[in-house]
Order: sequence, then structure tokens, then C-alpha cells
Amino acid sequence: MMFSLQMKVRDYECDVQGVVNNARYLHYFEHARHEWLHEMGIDFASLAKDGLHLMLRRVEVDYRQPLRPGEVFTVHSRLLSGGRAKVIFEQWIERDGSLCVSSRSEAVVVRNGRPQAFGKHPELALLVGVAE
Amino acid sequence: MMFSLQMKVRDYECDVQGVVNNARYLHYFEHARHEWLHEMGIDFASLAKDGLHLMLRRVEVDYRQPLRPGEVFTVHSRLLSGGRAKVIFEQWIERDGSLCVSSRSEAVVVRNGRPQAFGKHPELALLVGVAE
Amino acid sequence: MMFSLQMKVRDYECDVQGVVNNARYLHYFEHARHEWLHEMGIDFASLAKDGLHLMLRRVEVDYRQPLRPGEVFTVHSRLLSGGRAKVIFEQWIERDGSLCVSSRSEAVVVRNGRPQAFGKHPELALLVGVAE
Amino acid sequence: MMFSLQMKVRDYECDVQGVVNNARYLHYFEHARHEWLHEMGIDFASLAKDGLHLMLRRVEVDYRQPLRPGEVFTVHSRLLSGGRAKVIFEQWIERDGSLCVSSRSEAVVVRNGRPQAFGKHPELALLVGVAE
Repeated sequence: MMFSLQMKVRDYECDVQGVVNNARYLHYFEHARHEWLHEMGIDFASLAKDGLHLMLRRVEVDYRQPLRPGEVFTVHSRLLSGGRAKVIFEQWIERDGSLCVSSRSEAVVVRNGRPQAFGKHPELALLVGVAE
Repeated sequence: MMFSLQMKVRDYECDVQGVVNNARYLHYFEHARHEWLHEMGIDFASLAKDGLHLMLRRVEVDYRQPLRPGEVFTVHSRLLSGGRAKVIFEQWIERDGSLCVSSRSEAVVVRNGRPQAFGKHPELALLVGVAE
Repeated sequence: MMFSLQMKVRDYECDVQGVVNNARYLHYFEHARHEWLHEMGIDFASLAKDGLHLMLRRVEVDYRQPLRPGEVFTVHSRLLSGGRAKVIFEQWIERDGSLCVSSRSEAVVVRNGRPQAFGKHPELALLVGVAE
Repeated sequence: MMFSLQMKVRDYECDVQGVVNNARYLHYFEHARHEWLHEMGIDFASLAKDGLHLMLRRVEVDYRQPLRPGEVFTVHSRLLSGGRAKVIFEQWIERDGSLCVSSRSEAVVVRNGRPQAFGKHPELALLVGVAE
């Protein structure tokens, strides 16, 4: 299963080099993950209010081609199983059919600083089912 | 050789979870790298004006403990040799003696979209010398 | 004449208060202005490359109701005449028919630090025509 | 009474025009306000956890001279009385003795969406005392 989200570079996301700043891609990837989660009925902000925090443990990003002001691109997201208490997102950005940036990130759910098994939280169990 | 920069979390860098947003750490690491380069006499913004772009090819980040509003932390940076046309930065964030976030990033210098050997640019050759 | 752009709050745009950070609204307004300019054939990033900088001189923002994670909103923009070398944008954000944030900003075009009469630059003259 | 905070432009805060992006100044001003409040013993993030939200109602910014990458600047802040339930901050950014950006912002304290008289909250009453 894959989730695809179309986005567009906003000028303020670009830096003095005239391209999207490296850190911004993490925002793009985060937004795509949260939109996907939301579509599954999992709301990041609501979870946070309940003390359940979906947090990244690790992220890897490969920058191949920079995005520029005004460009339209698509963020593709896949979810891989990571065991009882971890999920792995594979995400990549495509512009006009060519791969620009790819990423792999590991996420856990934490309550009061302690990792939670997804199975214990009905609203999160879905994630494990979706993972390939 | 190591470069250490003390910084402080600003409230606007934190998100609804009450901790520094994941993407922000890339900003902290970038700023620490640029400050170090600047100390060596290499100015990121001036290079960009001359068409020389120091660009990340890959970044890995391990999030161990989140930073919170107002916390003071130190970004440590080391430079590893990466051959003729690449440098590798190892960076980590420490707060009160405990490791919070660590990162490894690969950077190249590009002119007109083509990677440049550092040796050809006197202002960059220094980087190779500093690398361990 | 009015330009309307629909947008959606991204989680990372919100701060520890759980609402969109005050500075972010300037990004929303900027993006809406640039999208409008782009539709008129004026490209902010290209102008910058040519040394023509569209710059804000002054901005006023009234915050009435905060936007929250995931909310869909519309940025409306109007352009008022400001004389030979200045334009005035009136912009406001509406969510579900209620006014959330409004803004008034004055912009000039500068080359080498000096204000430019819009009439002298064909690509900008259009702005004066659109202004009410 | 005045609070002054020295800061330095970070490269990622600048946009394709090579200067600090307009919205960033609101971050600088916010950070300076929060640092000042913190020095008075008022912690923005803690207040938010207690459901007390210090919120801007209005902000005005005059952009005179842009800040550029690496520049050191000082944010000066003054507090004007605004009555029982409002404070007014006057803030300005100075670089090498010349005025770059100035701002005036009105802030209120809100609990459950309702404005609070500062006098009712001992931790906030101080603000009124400091105001000129």
C-alpha cells in the first residue's frame, strides 16, 4: 500500500542557494506521513494531547536533485513493519517522473517517555496492519 | 579536530508535542557546520554567489532524547575525509553531558550541477586538510 | 480583483500552544502573494536572479482566531494602488466563513538598494493595472 | 526598562533574495520577548501547559534595512502598559548602530479562549509593573 501526496515548493522554503533547504524535506516527509495517518483515522495532534507521542528514532535522507521555487512534486510513502513497537516509513519525492529525494525513517510511539506496543492502542494497531 | 558551538532552544522551534521538531535539528547541524566553515574562512553565502554550492548528498540522524524549550545544548562537529570531492561531517548534540541527537552527513561541492574536486578550489582545499 | 488560495495547516507549522505560530501567517500571506504574482506572469525567484527585489516595507497583522493542525483555510488577496513605486496588499484568512487573521502589507521593488518605479519595468507595470 | 538580546543571522533564515525572510523577524522578536519574560520568571512553555496562553492580537513591522547571512544584531525590547488585560511590546533591531527593523505588538493572556486580567495571575502581574 502506498500513499501519494502532491505538493508545491513555496518560495520561503528555499535558501540563498535558490533551492529548497535540506531541512525542509523533513517537513515535506512529516506532512505526508501525517496526512496519511490522518486518512487512516490517526491524528498526530490529538494523540499528542492524549500523551501518546509518535516520534522519530532515526531518519536517513538521500538528496539526489534539489527542488526549486514553484516546482510541483509528489511525496510517495510506504510503511514497512518494524516489529511490535516500531514502524518504518519509506518515502521518496518525485518530480516529472524523476527521483529527487528519498528517505527512510523509523518511528515509535512513546507515552511518558516509554515505548508503547502498537497492539495495546487500538487507534495505532491499524498501522501494523497497513505495514507491508 | 573538533568544533563545538553552544546554542539554546527557541520556543518557536518546538512543535505541538512540546519538543524541538525533528527537522529543526538539521538546522542546528547546518548552522554549526557553517559557523565552523566560517571560522576556517569559508563563507557559505559568498560561495553560493560565486556559483559554488556546498550541498548535502546524504544525512543520517539518530534521535535519542528530545530537546525542550529553553534548553541549552552544544553541537559538536568533526570532519572526516571523504576523498577528492566529498567530506563527511559527524555531529552530535549534547545536553548536560548526555547525548541527545547524533548525525552523519556527506557534503559535496557543486558548480553548474557538477561535483568539484576540493583541491581545485584553494578556498576549499583547507577542508581536506582539516578532515581526520 | 481578488485572488483566493486554499491551503491547509501542516502540523509542523504549529507551536507548543497547539496553534499556528504567529510568524507562519506571514509565510501563508507571502505564498499567496507569490502565487498570485505568478498567475500574472511575475516570478519572484526569477526577478531576484535579475537583481529586482520585491520587498516588504511594512506589514500589519491582526490575529483574531488561531488556526489549528489540519484546518483548511482560504487566503484572500487584494491589491491597492500605492503610487508609482509601491503596492499595497490587503489579505485575510477565512476558515469556514469566519475571519481568522487579516493583514495589510506595503511592497516596493528595489534594484541595487534603490526603489524602482513600476512603470519602468514592463513585467511589473501589470501590478499597477491590477491594483484597485 | 529595556531588554537587549544579541543574536546572529543563521544562513537557513535567509531566502532566495539573500536576505533574512520577512517572517523570520517575527521569530527574532518572539524569541527576544520570551527570553525577557523568562528572565522575569515567566515561562511561555510552562504557561501553555497550564492552559494560560500569551497570544499576540496585533503586530506591526517596519522593514528598513534587511539583515544578511552571518550578521550580528541586537533586538531591543520595551514594554508599554496596555491596560488590565493587554501589554504592548515595542521592539527594534539594530545592527552596527543603525536601525534595521522595528515592531509594535499587542499581547493578551487567554485561558480557554477568554482574555485574562493580568492582576488575577500573580505570575503575570509582574508584567504590568515592568510596563512603562
